[in-house]
Amino acid sequence: MSSEPEISSSSTSAPEQSGENISKKAAKKEAARLEKLRRKQEHEEAARKTSSLSLEDESFTRNYGDVTLTELQSTEDPRAGKWREAIEGKKLTDLSCLVEETVGSEVLIRGRVNTNRQKSSKLGFLILRQSIFTVQCVATQSEETKVSVNFIKYLKQLSNESVVDVIGVVVKPKEEVKGTTQQVEIQVRKAYCLSGAMPQLPLLIEDASRSEIEIEAGLSGAKANQDTRLNNRVIDLRTPANQAIFRIQAQVQKAFREFLDAKDFVEIHTPKLMAGSSEGGSAVFRLEYKGQPACLAQSPQLHKQMAICGDLRRVYEVGPVFRAEDSFTHRHLCEFVGLDVEMEIQSHYSEIMDIVDELFVSIFTRVNDRCEKELAAVGKQFPFAPLKFLPKTLRLTFAEGIQMLKDAGVEVDPLGDLNTESERKLGQLVLEKYDTEFYMLHRYPAAVRPFYTMPCADDSRYSNSFDVFIRGEEIISGAQRVHIPEFLEKRAGECGIDVNTIKTYVDSFRYGAPLHGGFGVGLERVVMLFCALNNIRKTSMFPRDPQRLAP
Amino acid sequence: MSSEPEISSSSTSAPEQSGENISKKAAKKEAARLEKLRRKQEHEEAARKTSSLSLEDESFTRNYGDVTLTELQSTEDPRAGKWREAIEGKKLTDLSCLVEETVGSEVLIRGRVNTNRQKSSKLGFLILRQSIFTVQCVATQSEETKVSVNFIKYLKQLSNESVVDVIGVVVKPKEEVKGTTQQVEIQVRKAYCLSGAMPQLPLLIEDASRSEIEIEAGLSGAKANQDTRLNNRVIDLRTPANQAIFRIQAQVQKAFREFLDAKDFVEIHTPKLMAGSSEGGSAVFRLEYKGQPACLAQSPQLHKQMAICGDLRRVYEVGPVFRAEDSFTHRHLCEFVGLDVEMEIQSHYSEIMDIVDELFVSIFTRVNDRCEKELAAVGKQFPFAPLKFLPKTLRLTFAEGIQMLKDAGVEVDPLGDLNTESERKLGQLVLEKYDTEFYMLHRYPAAVRPFYTMPCADDSRYSNSFDVFIRGEEIISGAQRVHIPEFLEKRAGECGIDVNTIKTYVDSFRYGAPLHGGFGVGLERVVMLFCALNNIRKTSMFPRDPQRLAP
Repeated sequence: MSSEPEISSSSTSAPEQSGENISKKAAKKEAARLEKLRRKQEHEEAARKTSSLSLEDESFTRNYGDVTLTELQSTEDPRAGKWREAIEGKKLTDLSCLVEETVGSEVLIRGRVNTNRQKSSKLGFLILRQSIFTVQCVATQSEETKVSVNFIKYLKQLSNESVVDVIGVVVKPKEEVKGTTQQVEIQVRKAYCLSGAMPQLPLLIEDASRSEIEIEAGLSGAKANQDTRLNNRVIDLRTPANQAIFRIQAQVQKAFREFLDAKDFVEIHTPKLMAGSSEGGSAVFRLEYKGQPACLAQSPQLHKQMAICGDLRRVYEVGPVFRAEDSFTHRHLCEFVGLDVEMEIQSHYSEIMDIVDELFVSIFTRVNDRCEKELAAVGKQFPFAPLKFLPKTLRLTFAEGIQMLKDAGVEVDPLGDLNTESERKLGQLVLEKYDTEFYMLHRYPAAVRPFYTMPCADDSRYSNSFDVFIRGEEIISGAQRVHIPEFLEKRAGECGIDVNTIKTYVDSFRYGAPLHGGFGVGLERVVMLFCALNNIRKTSMFPRDPQRLAP
Repeated sequence: MSSEPEISSSSTSAPEQSGENISKKAAKKEAARLEKLRRKQEHEEAARKTSSLSLEDESFTRNYGDVTLTELQSTEDPRAGKWREAIEGKKLTDLSCLVEETVGSEVLIRGRVNTNRQKSSKLGFLILRQSIFTVQCVATQSEETKVSVNFIKYLKQLSNESVVDVIGVVVKPKEEVKGTTQQVEIQVRKAYCLSGAMPQLPLLIEDASRSEIEIEAGLSGAKANQDTRLNNRVIDLRTPANQAIFRIQAQVQKAFREFLDAKDFVEIHTPKLMAGSSEGGSAVFRLEYKGQPACLAQSPQLHKQMAICGDLRRVYEVGPVFRAEDSFTHRHLCEFVGLDVEMEIQSHYSEIMDIVDELFVSIFTRVNDRCEKELAAVGKQFPFAPLKFLPKTLRLTFAEGIQMLKDAGVEVDPLGDLNTESERKLGQLVLEKYDTEFYMLHRYPAAVRPFYTMPCADDSRYSNSFDVFIRGEEIISGAQRVHIPEFLEKRAGECGIDVNTIKTYVDSFRYGAPLHGGFGVGLERVVMLFCALNNIRKTSMFPRDPQRLAP
């Protein structure tokens, strides 16, 4: 059960088969063209290197150059090469740590070449980038420090995105450095390239990082389109906004767990492979499992309820959820991360809503507190206003929501579901009236909820269920479940479901079942709406939609 | 993207199709038999109830009975029934909180009927269970407290595993209560059944909980076999050992995250659906994805490396891993939870081993500290000695390990892999010599590692890789990765892999790639070996193996 299987062709030939309706022939041709271009670039680069660097004394040449393979292979021998010799006994300093207090000290730093310019043969500038931090490195020709003209030439030919180690002295520049996050400079003594990037990248960081405002104002160059970004996600992930988005995502789930752990919830893992025939719904991915028909779990619904019947009392799961829906909207994915909760209740479904309320207020507060820099980085490229939410989350009944829409002239079916448009409209009305972009709507019509949702005691047309909205879009669905097997069978029958097909599910409740309920949230959707981003593909690291299965 | 899809036949007809080689016809027959039995039991139960309870005054009958459906539907009306009226304004007290300090107070508690006996028509005993806690409830006939003979009869007919609310007064019993965890008793005033269990359960908790020692000594009754347990996992999960195992599992992953979060690792999620042709390895689950061939990820290897190339710097993932292997061993599953880590390194693969070392010492220590009760509960059923590990984890080279085996008379291929037997033997030798059951073996022969493993600088027959062992079994595999595209192609070629099939993977390193490496761990295996359990199915909540796809 090693986690490092041999990578087979099936798992890596991915992008060639990405669903972009290019014929195989055309795709092959394009690949061959790119390959040819790459080879040409490599040759040109090699030629440039040899021609530009003439012979010079070893005391100069040892201060720069490409790191050799042997050195990269974890040798501990400082004689293996000049890089090994130079870094011997030194520890890398993070770019984020290069602040005024470090002025005067010699540091070893590592970063990508972000920009690279030569002012003269004796003066070169290199901006290094590490995650969202940047620093300017200045190389000045000098006999004393053994920085030669060839050294500066070497720096000049380093391609953008190459990974470079620089050893140098931290100095305070005379004037403010524009275009870098760090307000100190590095006087370069030594520089070594650990990994050269292709000179011509399929996506430029500056295009991928360009602010939406600049683009709209037509102030600057090209905008990277979504598909180009996603096809080259390895490069796209390096933009400040993306660096921030996935750190925010990590904080959202961390805050989710912290809150629930403190409330005695147990994190569980339920199987994604389920037995199944070919008669099920259309939104199911099917496969063959050792000769049996199987499918991928569309949610942990059944198993999280089984965990409750198994007396785990309060459980949550963070895991992939698979939906084979043909949805090409801004907010649907075929695979996303589900945050699922299921819990015993004492006597009322409002206990579940209490948890949702406290949980999300806690998540929003923690993310605002902990991700100030990250939220700013996202906002710089995709400007947004902070989410408005109340310390105690607003709860409206579905009927009240319908009435608000009606009063505003929007007629919707009082026993039907809200469509995207009416969700948006209601969000707007709630914002105007209650000054919040986060609220709950409960007592949904029973007809639009699954059969296992507990109907209301006083009116069976409604159910003990709720949806939660951020900025006018649904992010959470939850409810009290029917835990009485006979009633569950009756409800299934009323919903036109053949009771025999759900026998296992119903049987889980025959051995004594606690009163319970729960909810499910899509992680990507929470991050998207918290940051008011316009597309869920921005908050999924490697998104899967009906047309995209790669990279 | 609601997380509560309509449950379709495909996702719930599961157990009927579990791979137990029962013909469909036989399975149907068996299901019909069980259904008939169930109906019969229901009728008998209903008959028993009506016959045994004669008419009595409402001031008595209000104190006990089955909760009605309306009451269970979250009504807020205390007039909806006697249970609603009784619990009005009361909050449930956890069984674990019933300690001497609570003596004298009236409490509302909820639990399952664990055992149930009537001493006389005027005295009944009920042991309630909530997770791993049990308490004795005593019902004594009394005019004053309105506890009638019929009330005691009602309690008597409650089937084991039924969920019951009891309102009563906490008292200190004259003598020590044997057979319950709580050392107080409840003098029953009221009792209501919220969910009745089938009188004849397919698995008895007492059989499922029986200690291995008792069984081996032939001291007591039947042992529940693994398949019966797993087929009825909802009941099996209620045993003290299982309650503990899944809480320990949750703590292992919590400790894993806490350590890595503190070291600036970012939690990520990579897709489980990958594009793929039908030419890949045999251990891959294949499916059709919107008309394209696809497969389930055998590990997050490619994507976690891409996250590093995308400058996330240090990442980890907790998520399902799919292996279609036909392994019927005690330690293989077709779906398990992978704990995967990938990180930039400064210059040596030992930096990865440093993280593994600190991480696992931290996990073991925290689990020992936080799960004392749970470890005891596991040990009570499956006796084991605490894991022996050192504060600084022992590291041996593969060659040293081979030598130890050789010295002990075990000949193994010095450039091959260790089989299960030699792993066990080496574990034993290490324990004898170094007094630890947790150690690392590094510098593995290159021939037995994937092509993307960085070979050693001084001897290319070996590689910058390692395995980690607990109690003589491998749990972790890790290595420095080749980040140089040209060298990666060369290594792939040497390993007989068609370079064209891994083009995407190799291309990820053409845009500048940091030195990096990582490792992968199976969560179920860590818990299994930490508690010295004999089968991985014990640490997977709903295990999947070549023959089991349900429940």
